Amino acid sequence: MNSVSSKHKEKDQAHNEQIDHKLARVRHLVLDVDGVLTDGRLYFDNSGNELKTFSTLDGHGIKMLQKSGVQVAIITGRRSSVVERRAHDLGVHKLIQGREDKFTALKELFGEDGYRLEDIAYVGDDYPDLLVMKRVGCPISVPNAAPPVREHAIWVTEARGGEGAVREVCDRIMKAQGTFDTALAPYLQTD
Amino acid sequence: MNSVSSKHKEKDQAHNEQIDHKLARVRHLVLDVDGVLTDGRLYFDNSGNELKTFSTLDGHGIKMLQKSGVQVAIITGRRSSVVERRAHDLGVHKLIQGREDKFTALKELFGEDGYRLEDIAYVGDDYPDLLVMKRVGCPISVPNAAPPVREHAIWVTEARGGEGAVREVCDRIMKAQGTFDTALAPYLQTD
Amino acid sequence: MNSVSSKHKEKDQAHNEQIDHKLARVRHLVLDVDGVLTDGRLYFDNSGNELKTFSTLDGHGIKMLQKSGVQVAIITGRRSSVVERRAHDLGVHKLIQGREDKFTALKELFGEDGYRLEDIAYVGDDYPDLLVMKRVGCPISVPNAAPPVREHAIWVTEARGGEGAVREVCDRIMKAQGTFDTALAPYLQTD
Amino acid sequence: MNSVSSKHKEKDQAHNEQIDHKLARVRHLVLDVDGVLTDGRLYFDNSGNELKTFSTLDGHGIKMLQKSGVQVAIITGRRSSVVERRAHDLGVHKLIQGREDKFTALKELFGEDGYRLEDIAYVGDDYPDLLVMKRVGCPISVPNAAPPVREHAIWVTEARGGEGAVREVCDRIMKAQGTFDTALAPYLQTD
Repeated sequence: MNSVSSKHKEKDQAHNEQIDHKLARVRHLVLDVDGVLTDGRLYFDNSGNELKTFSTLDGHGIKMLQKSGVQVAIITGRRSSVVERRAHDLGVHKLIQGREDKFTALKELFGEDGYRLEDIAYVGDDYPDLLVMKRVGCPISVPNAAPPVREHAIWVTEARGGEGAVREVCDRIMKAQGTFDTALAPYLQTD
Repeated sequence: MNSVSSKHKEKDQAHNEQIDHKLARVRHLVLDVDGVLTDGRLYFDNSGNELKTFSTLDGHGIKMLQKSGVQVAIITGRRSSVVERRAHDLGVHKLIQGREDKFTALKELFGEDGYRLEDIAYVGDDYPDLLVMKRVGCPISVPNAAPPVREHAIWVTEARGGEGAVREVCDRIMKAQGTFDTALAPYLQTD
Repeated sequence: MNSVSSKHKEKDQAHNEQIDHKLARVRHLVLDVDGVLTDGRLYFDNSGNELKTFSTLDGHGIKMLQKSGVQVAIITGRRSSVVERRAHDLGVHKLIQGREDKFTALKELFGEDGYRLEDIAYVGDDYPDLLVMKRVGCPISVPNAAPPVREHAIWVTEARGGEGAVREVCDRIMKAQGTFDTALAPYLQTD
Repeated sequence: MNSVSSKHKEKDQAHNEQIDHKLARVRHLVLDVDGVLTDGRLYFDNSGNELKTFSTLDGHGIKMLQKSGVQVAIITGRRSSVVERRAHDLGVHKLIQGREDKFTALKELFGEDGYRLEDIAYVGDDYPDLLVMKRVGCPISVPNAAPPVREHAIWVTEARGGEGAVREVCDRIMKAQGTFDTALAPYLQTD
């Protein structure tokens, strides 16, 4: 390996350690819906019905992360009963829909509990998400996000929104917090 | 860098400046639906119901572009109540559906207001779109378009139709017109 | 260019000319549905409703090809009202559904008119399609087909089924038959 | 070819032979649903309706494999009438839904018949599948699986779940068991 690519590697590693350091203290994971929990597609039919698609990988990740002690919440600018149902299925009780001002929504969501912005990870893909991403400890984005949003993230997942991006986030938080192996262990038993 | 690739780069840059020069004077953005605002897929079910999928990124881009002073219109050869609803949600009031002759539709749409063809950008993906694209100042296409349509465009977006192509157009028009930073500013505030 | 890649190119060109030679005499284009006119996905919901997705590019190609004098027919192993509706919308009147033995279906479809197998192009993606593909003049396949089906085709389209594969076939037939420029001309007029 | 890449090739070939050796004795193919028979997307609409998408290629593969003498079964953690219908259409009568503990479900499914774990191939994509994959003779996974699941598989298909992964498994089992050519023969007849 020449010294240039070696330096590049060191820098990457330092950056990854910095991300994991921040993820290690996350107490709340807050998720946008369209483009993060979904692929950003809105399905409409003739009669005004609306569909969204979610990922089973994400669903299982959210359940495991909650079990590990991290709280999961959802804030979305649009409003639909689909999201309400999905949140309920996943045991996500903190949910605010139809809010353009996402930072005010965030304060409402956690206001009564007491919280610290540094302890929050937020995953977003569009400009309204920047209002939260610029203030919390762990702003995260996805490959399919608008470019300025990706630039304000400390980490952009490999998987696209709706195709496992949130699962990637859940697993990495658990690894950074040392809870991943314990969470996986029951599935590896053979006796 | 050798001189060949350097020349290639200069030519690319000159072409990009030419595109931005044309985008800077756009007053009206006119959009085709299937293949541009959608991925070109038509979903049909047993009972004759039809679905289309739209992109949330596109939706936000259209709203911001309108706020910046550029008018957005939709002309489509097919006809469906899905498009009517989506246009209404986005505040797009100029909409003509079910018209094969798209240039005549364009003249009807803008006839009363007075308009100049040089001030119009049009995004299309199939042959009927050529009728408009060959006449307006900014003919734009998408990677999933029929090849002859891409050839008649001054610019082919990177994103595919229904996956952010229209957002790419909206953001680049605002950048060329110097309105992008103002539009983004409210989302970057932290006080 | 070295002599190896030059030879490769000559061989490719000879193969392409052979394909175009066969396409030039096609009078009937026969299409499979799932995996050819669609991406092979079957959408089912809780109440037994079924959806399929079609491509607008394909639709326009089929209409133009018919106008140019080539007849289009559909033979499919499954059965659904979705296909009936789509065929009707595209002006395709020769349609047989729910038939495993596709070659017998083909003979029924054209039996009364008189036809020659050498004048038929067929696009298929799965084993039952081989029954027809091994007998007609122009067996064509798609990139998403089962490997043995691709091997029995004289040509595999670049676009996948449901994403413009059939449009690619329609345009190439018209080019090989010298009808493409006439078909495109009305869209290029600026009078 | 240099000796390094030659060694790499030998190792690959040895691994492939080992896989085929195990597939040759498979009597039961057991499939997960979400992410294996589907792409892992859950489609929800406003009224609580749910859709899943299946692949026609997979469907045909499952029917051929059963005809060749291998039994096919489905075990899934979620529960939906969509899966029931799809299983019925494919002639898959061994089906257990809504079960987190997949290994217990497996024992119930085959308990009465008598079976050997070494004779079972299982295709999975998420942690609950590991409970079965670590015990059966042929644990198989898909490219879209969670990384630890891919690591516990003896083989990861090329096709993604819902896009032909199961067809790839069916065809390879038949090839390893020497039944593939017989199964394909009827489609290649031109009498």
